[in-house]
Amino acid sequence: MIPEISRDKFLDGRLLIDQPKQGYRAGIDPVLLAAAVPAVSGQTVLELGCGVGTASLCLSARVRDLTLTGVEIQPDYAELARANARRAKVLLQVLETDIRALPMAVRQKNFDHVFANPPYYLREQGTTAQDEGREQALGEGAPLSDWVDVAVKRLAPGGCLTMIQNADRLPEMLAAAFGRLGAVEVLPLVSRSGRSAGRIILRGRKGRRTPFRLLSPLVLHQGATHFSDADSYRPEIDAVLRGGACLPGFES
Amino acid sequence: MIPEISRDKFLDGRLLIDQPKQGYRAGIDPVLLAAAVPAVSGQTVLELGCGVGTASLCLSARVRDLTLTGVEIQPDYAELARANARRAKVLLQVLETDIRALPMAVRQKNFDHVFANPPYYLREQGTTAQDEGREQALGEGAPLSDWVDVAVKRLAPGGCLTMIQNADRLPEMLAAAFGRLGAVEVLPLVSRSGRSAGRIILRGRKGRRTPFRLLSPLVLHQGATHFSDADSYRPEIDAVLRGGACLPGFES
Repeated sequence: MIPEISRDKFLDGRLLIDQPKQGYRAGIDPVLLAAAVPAVSGQTVLELGCGVGTASLCLSARVRDLTLTGVEIQPDYAELARANARRAKVLLQVLETDIRALPMAVRQKNFDHVFANPPYYLREQGTTAQDEGREQALGEGAPLSDWVDVAVKRLAPGGCLTMIQNADRLPEMLAAAFGRLGAVEVLPLVSRSGRSAGRIILRGRKGRRTPFRLLSPLVLHQGATHFSDADSYRPEIDAVLRGGACLPGFES
Repeated sequence: MIPEISRDKFLDGRLLIDQPKQGYRAGIDPVLLAAAVPAVSGQTVLELGCGVGTASLCLSARVRDLTLTGVEIQPDYAELARANARRAKVLLQVLETDIRALPMAVRQKNFDHVFANPPYYLREQGTTAQDEGREQALGEGAPLSDWVDVAVKRLAPGGCLTMIQNADRLPEMLAAAFGRLGAVEVLPLVSRSGRSAGRIILRGRKGRRTPFRLLSPLVLHQGATHFSDADSYRPEIDAVLRGGACLPGFES
């Protein structure tokens, strides 16, 4: 069965993404993730679990001349990622594979940057999603420690891992990264000032020994309450989501 | 050689603490730690590494009728803790021992609360302190994972661990707590609004499965800059440091 597809606008319409109407759908998280990857022109970049390619294509809209590779386990999503990249005129090599079984061609390379937006929920804890694609993308296949393991292995010395994840998975993230990455910084993302973190973005570098830093939270929305989130992003967040700017809040 | 002792005021002078003039000296951290322990009257409480007893005695000033036990490896500090408790008319049992070699009398008990302010620096990373007591209290004997291990073992089911630590040690703290405590909450303490976390307070409960929460930072000082920290505490922090109030910022 061919899934029904919608065409959605990102970065104020500069990026068009085809994605299934049902199932996992890219929201703001891949845009924030891409905005947090400190890549510069000419570098090599690997996205683990690239889905329909949203984060990699957002990154390529901000930084020119990257060599982009994406890995996606679901064939439908991988095919959409290729089509989305062609439409955006971006060279994105998409490999259909489990991150734990990367082909030799990828395992022989290392990358300046690895980034990922791994599934947020443990399958055993959640109810089974009705849609298989959504289940695969939201419910977890590989444990989070495998995502970190694979990413660290594929990083060049000094290379940078960037991941976005639900804040309640921070202990797993840090346990997996502990002793394997240095200069780790965690940026909490909060919907409103004073709230607990909803998501966290973790950045760290392979082979560094700089101490861990817990950064000041990045507040997404203006004001203390709201009726609709759509129009209430703070200007610096709007600059990221619509303008494709770098994410503020990191120090290194 | 008998160390020179100073008598210092805590909680607006309601608590007098004798401590060595040279070496590790209690500042605001044991006061903040005690204010974060959610103990209620009648409960049993164990402090690991109690030093001269500042945190346990601050806690006893807020919550009546606790059964208090402190463990301290350094005989001079343990003796001062006993004397400080006698002066405050508080029953605090102080045991001179390494936390990794608790006597049978303690190992046969479990506690409603365990709390600790473990050494902040890894000995191997720092320069050796000139003072042996300071070295022992600041430089690390037992690794942080041992502190968490011992604490978790001594907790009753549902019992609560509370620890204060430098923010750069959060990955080790969470790695040690991961899978062994539930309802873990991390409260970042920041000197000024917008800064990275200086210290963190971690709370978690044995045998719970409630997801992890990264709480909104607790700001200690007023304003964006300052000449002297002494007078610039925010009113709710002043209520903790001088008034002996509960620490704000936790949710559960």
